[in-house]
Amino acid sequence: MSGELTHLDADGTARMVDVGAKPVTARTAVARATVRMGAQTAARVAAGDAPKGDVLGVARIAGIQAAKRTGELIPLCHPIGLDHVEVDGVIDAAAGTIVLTGTASVTARTGVEMEAMTAVSVAALTVYDMVKGLDKGVEITEVVLLEKSGGRSGHWVRS
Amino acid sequence: MSGELTHLDADGTARMVDVGAKPVTARTAVARATVRMGAQTAARVAAGDAPKGDVLGVARIAGIQAAKRTGELIPLCHPIGLDHVEVDGVIDAAAGTIVLTGTASVTARTGVEMEAMTAVSVAALTVYDMVKGLDKGVEITEVVLLEKSGGRSGHWVRS
Amino acid sequence: MSGELTHLDADGTARMVDVGAKPVTARTAVARATVRMGAQTAARVAAGDAPKGDVLGVARIAGIQAAKRTGELIPLCHPIGLDHVEVDGVIDAAAGTIVLTGTASVTARTGVEMEAMTAVSVAALTVYDMVKGLDKGVEITEVVLLEKSGGRSGHWVRS
Amino acid sequence: MSGELTHLDADGTARMVDVGAKPVTARTAVARATVRMGAQTAARVAAGDAPKGDVLGVARIAGIQAAKRTGELIPLCHPIGLDHVEVDGVIDAAAGTIVLTGTASVTARTGVEMEAMTAVSVAALTVYDMVKGLDKGVEITEVVLLEKSGGRSGHWVRS
Amino acid sequence: MSGELTHLDADGTARMVDVGAKPVTARTAVARATVRMGAQTAARVAAGDAPKGDVLGVARIAGIQAAKRTGELIPLCHPIGLDHVEVDGVIDAAAGTIVLTGTASVTARTGVEMEAMTAVSVAALTVYDMVKGLDKGVEITEVVLLEKSGGRSGHWVRS
Amino acid sequence: MSGELTHLDADGTARMVDVGAKPVTARTAVARATVRMGAQTAARVAAGDAPKGDVLGVARIAGIQAAKRTGELIPLCHPIGLDHVEVDGVIDAAAGTIVLTGTASVTARTGVEMEAMTAVSVAALTVYDMVKGLDKGVEITEVVLLEKSGGRSGHWVRS
Repeated sequence: MSGELTHLDADGTARMVDVGAKPVTARTAVARATVRMGAQTAARVAAGDAPKGDVLGVARIAGIQAAKRTGELIPLCHPIGLDHVEVDGVIDAAAGTIVLTGTASVTARTGVEMEAMTAVSVAALTVYDMVKGLDKGVEITEVVLLEKSGGRSGHWVRS
Repeated sequence: MSGELTHLDADGTARMVDVGAKPVTARTAVARATVRMGAQTAARVAAGDAPKGDVLGVARIAGIQAAKRTGELIPLCHPIGLDHVEVDGVIDAAAGTIVLTGTASVTARTGVEMEAMTAVSVAALTVYDMVKGLDKGVEITEVVLLEKSGGRSGHWVRS
Repeated sequence: MSGELTHLDADGTARMVDVGAKPVTARTAVARATVRMGAQTAARVAAGDAPKGDVLGVARIAGIQAAKRTGELIPLCHPIGLDHVEVDGVIDAAAGTIVLTGTASVTARTGVEMEAMTAVSVAALTVYDMVKGLDKGVEITEVVLLEKSGGRSGHWVRS
Repeated sequence: MSGELTHLDADGTARMVDVGAKPVTARTAVARATVRMGAQTAARVAAGDAPKGDVLGVARIAGIQAAKRTGELIPLCHPIGLDHVEVDGVIDAAAGTIVLTGTASVTARTGVEMEAMTAVSVAALTVYDMVKGLDKGVEITEVVLLEKSGGRSGHWVRS
Repeated sequence: MSGELTHLDADGTARMVDVGAKPVTARTAVARATVRMGAQTAARVAAGDAPKGDVLGVARIAGIQAAKRTGELIPLCHPIGLDHVEVDGVIDAAAGTIVLTGTASVTARTGVEMEAMTAVSVAALTVYDMVKGLDKGVEITEVVLLEKSGGRSGHWVRS
Repeated sequence: MSGELTHLDADGTARMVDVGAKPVTARTAVARATVRMGAQTAARVAAGDAPKGDVLGVARIAGIQAAKRTGELIPLCHPIGLDHVEVDGVIDAAAGTIVLTGTASVTARTGVEMEAMTAVSVAALTVYDMVKGLDKGVEITEVVLLEKSGGRSGHWVRS
C-alpha cells in the first residue's frame, strides 16, 4: 500500500489538498445507501408512497440538495460545481429495505465521490426521519461508493 | 403496528409535523456509525492519528457542525437549538473499523434523534473522505440510533 | 398612520428590532403565491404531476426548507425556530395557475409572517424553475400575506 | 408546444438536468419584482430612505446575497458561480410601488435566470419585511423574467 | 487562574459544552473591530459614503447576517436565537480608521459574546473588501469584546 | 491615488463587480491573524494542545470551512471555487500569542484575498471562543493580508 493520507501534510496537520495543477476533466461517481426496516414498515412506506410518492420523493430532493452542500459539510472537500445529480430509490417491501442510489458528475479538477456519498447518506437519513415514528429499529446498513470515473485514477468499480 | 407516517397528512402530502402543543422537555439521543476499511488502512489512520489526532479530530468537528445544520439537511426536521453535542471516535486497527458515537441533547418540543444521526453520518463521511485515497473499498457499514430519552415516548434503548 | 419604520433607528440606520422584552406567544401566519402560465403548460404540469406528484412535491419541500432559512435570507429578520410549516399547491389547468399556500407557526417573541412569505416565494420560484423550459412567459403574479395571529397585534385577515 | 418538463425523467422523477455536455458560454438574465403599498407608506420609505438609503440599500444587499445561494434554495438548480449580480430599486411614491430589477451573469454551462429571479424575490421580501409594520396590506405583485441571453436558446426579451 | 479549557473534556477532546442545566437568562454582549487605512482612503470612504451610506451600510448588514450564523462558523458554539443585533460604524477620516461596534442580545442558556465578535469581524472584513482596491495596506487592527452581561459571571467590562 | 471604490457604481450604489471579461488565472493569497492572551493562558493552550492538538486543530478546520463560505458572508464577494486552503497556527506561550496563517488559491476570474482573510478571522474567533472561559481579556490584535499573486495586479507582498 503505497498511498498516503493525502489530507495530512508532513506534520500530520489537516489541510485541503492543492488541486490547482490537476487538469479539468469530466468525472462521475455513483454511491448507494440502504435503509433496513421491518417488512410491515416498508409495506406502509410503499403503500403511502403510491398516491403521492412522498417518502422517496422527499428523500430524492434532500439528497440532491445535500450533494450541492458537500463542500460545506465535509471539512477538507473542495467546493465544486455539479453538472448533474440524481438520486433514485427502490423499496423492497418483502425484504424490508429501501435502496437509494445516487449519481453525481462534474467537470472539475477533483472528483465527485463525496457528493455522491453525501447525497445518498442524506437521502437515507431523510427516509429514516420519515419512518422512525413507525419503527424505532430502522437502520442505515450501508453507505458505499459503487463506481467512479474520470481523473488520474481512471474507472473504478466496486468488486 | 398502530403508528402512522406522521410526516404525511391525510392526502399523503409531506409536511412538518406541528409540535406547537407539545411540552418543552429535556431530550437526548445517541447514535453510532461504523466505517470499515482494511486493517492496514486503519493502522495508518491510528498511526497518523497519534501525533496530531487529525482524522478523528476533523471527523468530530465535522459531526458537531453537521448536527447544528440538521434542520437544513433533513427536509421535515424542525429547526431546534442544541444544549450539547459530542462525537467520539474509536479506531480498532485489527478489526479495520472506526466507530463514531454521537450524543445530542436539547430542551425542546421535539426530539433530537436526527441531530445525533446526522452528526455520526457526517463524521463517518469525513473519515471516508480522509482515507479514500488509501483504500477505495472503505465503506460505512451502519448508522443507527442507540438510545433516546425525553418526550412522550420515554427512554428507548436499541435491543 | 402612526406606525414607524421599525427597522430604522433614530438615524435611519438598519438594525434588527430588539424583541427581548416581548412575551413568548404562539404565532401563526399564512401566505399565498400564484404562478401564472399558459393553460397548456399547466395541463402538462397537472398530467406530469399525476403519477409522481413531482412539480408540486418538489415545490412543497423547497418552500418548507426555505422557511427554515428565512433568518439567513432576510437581513433584519430574527432567527427563530418553527413549530410547523406546511406548503400546499393547487393547479387550475384551465386558468393556467398554480396557487401555493403556506402556513408557518412558532412559539416565540416575534411573528412568523416572513417565514410564511419566504416559503411560498421559494415554492413559486421552484415551480417557475421546473416549467420555464416549457413556457418562457411564466410569471409569479402575487406573493401576499393572508392571515396572521398571535402577538400584540392580534388576529389579522387580509380583506 | 414541443418542450418537455426537463426536470422530470422518463418516469416523472425529479432530477437535476445533466449539463455536462453543454458548452461554457457567457449568460445574462434580468428579472423584476414589484412591491405595492399605500402611497403614504411609499412616501415614508422614500423619505426615510433619503438620508441613509436604508430600505433599498438593505434590499439590494439581500438580493445580491440570495442570488449567490440560489442553488441551495431551488432544489433542481445547478450550483454555479456568478460573474456579476446587481439589484436596483426605484420608489414611485405616488403609485405606491417599489420596483426591484436584478441582473445576474455567469460564464457557465447553464443559464442564470433563477439567480436573477431569486435576487429580486428576496429583495422584494426584504422590502416587505421592512414596511410591514407600517402597512399590513403590502404585497408583492409580480416577479418576472425580463430578458435572458447566452446559451442555445439565444436572446429572449419578454414581450 | 482556576478556569479550565471548557471545550476540552478530560481527554482533551473537543466537544460542545453541555448547557442543558443552565438557567435561561437575558444576555448581552458588545464587541468592537477597527479597520485602519490611509487617511486618503478613509476620506474617500467617508465621501463616497455621504450620498448613499453604502460602505458602512453594507458592512452593517453583513455583520448582522453573520451574527445569525455564528453557530455555523464557530465549531463549538451553541446554535442560539437572537433577540437583537446591531452594528454601527464610525469613520475617522483624519485618523484613517473605521470603528465597528456590535451589540447582540438573547434570552438563552448560554452567552452571546461570539455573536457580537462574529458580527464585528465580518463587518470589518466587508469594509476591507470594499476598500482593498484603493489601498492594499488596509488592515484590521483589533477585534475585542467590550462588555458582557447576564449569566453566572455577571456584568463584565473591558478595563 | 487613482483607484476607485470598485464596489460602488456611478451613483454610489453597492454592486458586485462584473468580472466576466477578466481572464481565468491562478491566484493565491496569504493572510495572518494574531490572538493575544495572558502568558498563562497561552501556556494552558499549548499544554492542553499537546496530547490532542485540539485548540489549533479545531481552529484550522473552522478556518478552512469558513474560507469555503466567504461568498456567503461578504456581500459583494464573488462565489468562487477553491483549489487549496490551509490554515496553520503557532503558539508562542512566552509572548502570549497564537498566530494563524492562512493560504488560499484558486483558478478563477477574481482574487482570493477575502477567502484567506476570512479563513484566519474565523480561525482566530474559534481560538477566542475556546479560551475565553480562561481569560476574558483575550483579543484579536490583527487580521492582515500578507501576500497575493495572480491577476492583473501581479505579485504583492506586505512591506
